[in-house]
Amino acid sequence: MYSFENDYSEGACKKVLDYLAEHNEVQTAGYGLDSYSEEAASLVKKLIGKEADVHFITGGTPCNALAIGLLRPYQSVICVTSGHINVHETGAVEATGHKIDAVEGINGKITPEAIEKVVLSHTDEHMVQPRMVFISNATELGTIYHKDELQAISAMCKKHDLYLYLDGARIANALTAASNDLTLKDIAELTDMFYIGGTKNGALLGEAMVILNEDLKKDFRYYIKRQGAMLAKGRVISQQFIALLQDDTYLENARNANENAQYLRKALLAKGIEMFIDSETNQIFPILPDALIKKLLKDYQFLEWGRYDEKRTTVRLVCSWATRKENVDAFIDTLNHYI
Amino acid sequence: MYSFENDYSEGACKKVLDYLAEHNEVQTAGYGLDSYSEEAASLVKKLIGKEADVHFITGGTPCNALAIGLLRPYQSVICVTSGHINVHETGAVEATGHKIDAVEGINGKITPEAIEKVVLSHTDEHMVQPRMVFISNATELGTIYHKDELQAISAMCKKHDLYLYLDGARIANALTAASNDLTLKDIAELTDMFYIGGTKNGALLGEAMVILNEDLKKDFRYYIKRQGAMLAKGRVISQQFIALLQDDTYLENARNANENAQYLRKALLAKGIEMFIDSETNQIFPILPDALIKKLLKDYQFLEWGRYDEKRTTVRLVCSWATRKENVDAFIDTLNHYI
Amino acid sequence: MYSFENDYSEGACKKVLDYLAEHNEVQTAGYGLDSYSEEAASLVKKLIGKEADVHFITGGTPCNALAIGLLRPYQSVICVTSGHINVHETGAVEATGHKIDAVEGINGKITPEAIEKVVLSHTDEHMVQPRMVFISNATELGTIYHKDELQAISAMCKKHDLYLYLDGARIANALTAASNDLTLKDIAELTDMFYIGGTKNGALLGEAMVILNEDLKKDFRYYIKRQGAMLAKGRVISQQFIALLQDDTYLENARNANENAQYLRKALLAKGIEMFIDSETNQIFPILPDALIKKLLKDYQFLEWGRYDEKRTTVRLVCSWATRKENVDAFIDTLNHYI
Amino acid sequence: MYSFENDYSEGACKKVLDYLAEHNEVQTAGYGLDSYSEEAASLVKKLIGKEADVHFITGGTPCNALAIGLLRPYQSVICVTSGHINVHETGAVEATGHKIDAVEGINGKITPEAIEKVVLSHTDEHMVQPRMVFISNATELGTIYHKDELQAISAMCKKHDLYLYLDGARIANALTAASNDLTLKDIAELTDMFYIGGTKNGALLGEAMVILNEDLKKDFRYYIKRQGAMLAKGRVISQQFIALLQDDTYLENARNANENAQYLRKALLAKGIEMFIDSETNQIFPILPDALIKKLLKDYQFLEWGRYDEKRTTVRLVCSWATRKENVDAFIDTLNHYI
Repeated sequence: MYSFENDYSEGACKKVLDYLAEHNEVQTAGYGLDSYSEEAASLVKKLIGKEADVHFITGGTPCNALAIGLLRPYQSVICVTSGHINVHETGAVEATGHKIDAVEGINGKITPEAIEKVVLSHTDEHMVQPRMVFISNATELGTIYHKDELQAISAMCKKHDLYLYLDGARIANALTAASNDLTLKDIAELTDMFYIGGTKNGALLGEAMVILNEDLKKDFRYYIKRQGAMLAKGRVISQQFIALLQDDTYLENARNANENAQYLRKALLAKGIEMFIDSETNQIFPILPDALIKKLLKDYQFLEWGRYDEKRTTVRLVCSWATRKENVDAFIDTLNHYI
Repeated sequence: MYSFENDYSEGACKKVLDYLAEHNEVQTAGYGLDSYSEEAASLVKKLIGKEADVHFITGGTPCNALAIGLLRPYQSVICVTSGHINVHETGAVEATGHKIDAVEGINGKITPEAIEKVVLSHTDEHMVQPRMVFISNATELGTIYHKDELQAISAMCKKHDLYLYLDGARIANALTAASNDLTLKDIAELTDMFYIGGTKNGALLGEAMVILNEDLKKDFRYYIKRQGAMLAKGRVISQQFIALLQDDTYLENARNANENAQYLRKALLAKGIEMFIDSETNQIFPILPDALIKKLLKDYQFLEWGRYDEKRTTVRLVCSWATRKENVDAFIDTLNHYI
Repeated sequence: MYSFENDYSEGACKKVLDYLAEHNEVQTAGYGLDSYSEEAASLVKKLIGKEADVHFITGGTPCNALAIGLLRPYQSVICVTSGHINVHETGAVEATGHKIDAVEGINGKITPEAIEKVVLSHTDEHMVQPRMVFISNATELGTIYHKDELQAISAMCKKHDLYLYLDGARIANALTAASNDLTLKDIAELTDMFYIGGTKNGALLGEAMVILNEDLKKDFRYYIKRQGAMLAKGRVISQQFIALLQDDTYLENARNANENAQYLRKALLAKGIEMFIDSETNQIFPILPDALIKKLLKDYQFLEWGRYDEKRTTVRLVCSWATRKENVDAFIDTLNHYI
Repeated sequence: MYSFENDYSEGACKKVLDYLAEHNEVQTAGYGLDSYSEEAASLVKKLIGKEADVHFITGGTPCNALAIGLLRPYQSVICVTSGHINVHETGAVEATGHKIDAVEGINGKITPEAIEKVVLSHTDEHMVQPRMVFISNATELGTIYHKDELQAISAMCKKHDLYLYLDGARIANALTAASNDLTLKDIAELTDMFYIGGTKNGALLGEAMVILNEDLKKDFRYYIKRQGAMLAKGRVISQQFIALLQDDTYLENARNANENAQYLRKALLAKGIEMFIDSETNQIFPILPDALIKKLLKDYQFLEWGRYDEKRTTVRLVCSWATRKENVDAFIDTLNHYI
């Protein structure tokens, strides 16, 4: 039984685990005030090419709750209906007291027009005040933002005094996608805050929150602690980020995930299997006959994502840093066997 | 420079790290729904000798916020003024909307009388409704609850329909203290909910929340997710707990911490140094002359805990699973050198 | 300058003001524990024909926040996108930590199908758990629920273990609408909780919250106090409700509002002016040429509700208990003058 | 049966009720954006002799929740243990996510030293960050702050960058107390925000929130709406404040309350009855034998405030704008009859 269910099925990639083991005995200060955290932050700042506050957080949901929790109580965040915060975080954003203004996306992506429409329809103190835009790159549908798109969104945010926050749980997958034209430097220029995902890219856990806008930096460690997202052994996260960032392992991991997924996607397309959406990263969404799915599930784990029509269901197949070409080939063989 | 600042200065104990490495490649389901989490939960249930819901949580602050967050919005939690939730969690409990009714403790411990006084002074809907008692074992001051004390507190809680929740960040240190007469089985009998701490006892991170009261079990995974305290790679925590629990490593780790601290304590007492409190576990609180502290800080890290009198300060010295007798001996040597 | 802007432009109807003045000197207990509150609650229970807990609340937004605030932290409320809680309460529901699952309505009304779709798409602890349905009667668009509709919604709620809560800010307008076939008794049978609006029906302030479901009654006064929605002089609200309910003044007030609005609606239709929606109560939504609106605003106040097409805007005209036929006639005269 | 239980036992004072009745028919804009609210705000600004934002709020608890809710999530408010927010608001402050740092008061009043001690003991992001001081004038114990005391507190707040917020539920009673040397102008100079109480001084409901610090003014109407503390008929509160403020009726009402209470206090002292505290305003706290209390309760309502010794209980007797000398004389007569 092999799983294409997600990109967090295994532990950590080798370099991460080795780094943890190698530096395990060293005594450090607690709560992220250690030299590893400093070093990891420096690596991030070098990659983005500018000053920033960098904090290491236990996971993606706390990152998002923290970012949106910086808003004033009556302010809201705009995102697409398929956004992770809108669907898959059990109300963690609302738990901080904030409303999500959800708008329809196009291929999982928000548009400047949709943002502006929300802003213009919120006119007075009887409604929440939109103050932040939330995007994910790569998106929940495996698509990516291109430079012109991110620039347009960023410009619209500036026009209406909205913070732009980017959920980078799969940012490395976006950066290594075939058609990508964005760099970390671009993202750091165009957003107010974003995070570089570790959990879905070979770390045991942890994300690197990058705060660029001066207004959002103040007392952020108070927020982290209050949210319960500050590890006593903060170095456990930052050590992993050193391992991921120092030799571009984060890109290498993501590239492996993307390449295997796209290799699989092409194989399926070649067999006449349609895709629900043209994703470019490590998640693909083939539309499979129900009978075939039933057979495949005997040997493989994957998510039934949603009914497509009477006889077919969209499934989600995810490759990760740990997926090997032979895993994909085996899946294709099984598929060939059944059709 | 050696640090006695806390019990989370190093990474993980060897058995934990080895277990993680050994099982790193195995694919599992995400979010704690994996076989390791099942196995770790079984180990816990075997240790407590009864049924329970066991969840693996990222840290102590989220554990406490989760437990208290189970109360109805207008209900409060009673704890001692020195309680971790009252002092050192940056309002994480209040962030869930609940008031803490803090009472003076005796040696860091709550008394049934203090609990009852709070209950009787909250008479109607103009005041919060006390509904839970929070205790830590070992306490913030390194003291421990004995069986008769815990029984009396538990009885008082039952009398007034209060949940009893025990923060077990250092539960293994309590269980291995010289005068301890409590077992995990006792604690599971006498409380409604408690957690077994991993972070401060040799894990990279993580705590095992044990829910005993049927009323508190429902939908707890929703709470965890909403709090942002559910790891995608849930197995990272449960694997560590298997390593800690399967061969009583958790007790061995704690015993090492306690023994080194008590060895140091006796050495200091022998030199005529007074203790602020007679702690029995891995934290000791000697009262040192300011001039001496200044000298010691050149070679050692530790916490200046509070001014004692004009010329002396109480300091906190903490030993851990990682402390070796030679570290303590070296400290004593340095001290001897200065006095 | 006469205002059709809303139904809370004036103070209180005569009977309410007289009752307040007449009973002003009487000393009572505070916080709603007085004999007037008891009497007003009895009147409500007589009208609904069954036992209930009745509480008098300062306004509609606190009523809604209180009702939804009864849910467990991870649970959500379903309502139509045009619902008051979703648009016009500045995130007061999210302030209690709860997500709103908004669905498209039909004429401002929710359908059982839409409810079920939300329920079925929320499958596990990574998403909020829908637990309540929020409806308004009359709706924000002046439409009303008929008996078969409310029965179907109630049945769907029972099927999926959802509470049904009805915002009755304009419940009297619904009950006195031409096609209405619901009674307060029906509403009390079919919902778990609802409120009878005072503010928009001739009271200075205040709403009567009616809790029917036993599970929701416990400690509700704690919730009210915590929300800041409990008046020290609770009798100020209950006295007004006695005046409104004892001689069916609440129906008389609403009937006056509806009749004037419908009289105006027919007059406008007769002139060939289209309506945005066929509302039956005291709010009508004519589509007027922009040039005409500009002229009318010299003598009348009303809300420009939304652009309809390039040259026309939908406006909202509201009549109230205080509107007199002569006010409407004067408006029609002015309109005739301009077209 | 006559009640000395509190100062909100009756409806409104005559001038308030007359003003409401006289202006009842006038149409105004909703939600406090009307000319009455403007006029009432002007009256307040004239009284304090400076610019301010003035908002009319439904009650004292929402005022306090709003003021403290302006803080950043991780910030706390300092008050005395007997403070209304700490005891009698059912966790309404914690409901906004903020911790209260309670300190022992002297005669119900906070001291600069106590404030500083809290500030100095909160040193880093593991603890909440004290950011506001909450005081009441008159206090919960009927005592008042003198000018030098308020100046010292204000200076301490400035020293440590704390906002000073004054709960003025009984501010008029303080201003008319015998030893008072403060004016509204002084209070407006020395605090960042305070409210002038209406509810306990002859209004049906409502308080006037006065924001002096520029930093706290922004978007306050969003906060009010979100808290559910904005009346649709905002004029209902502001009209009452016009009636109270335009001819110093608020002082007259308070003076009547104080004088009757102090008259009663002297009569009791003359009989050798001790007071629990030397209050100067409209609340007095005599220590009465239990047997006597039992007899008095046959004809009078008042609060048994707390057991004093084995045979005596402290009671609270409150006079109000509505108390007449004959009511007090009758009480004294009854007392004479029993002792």
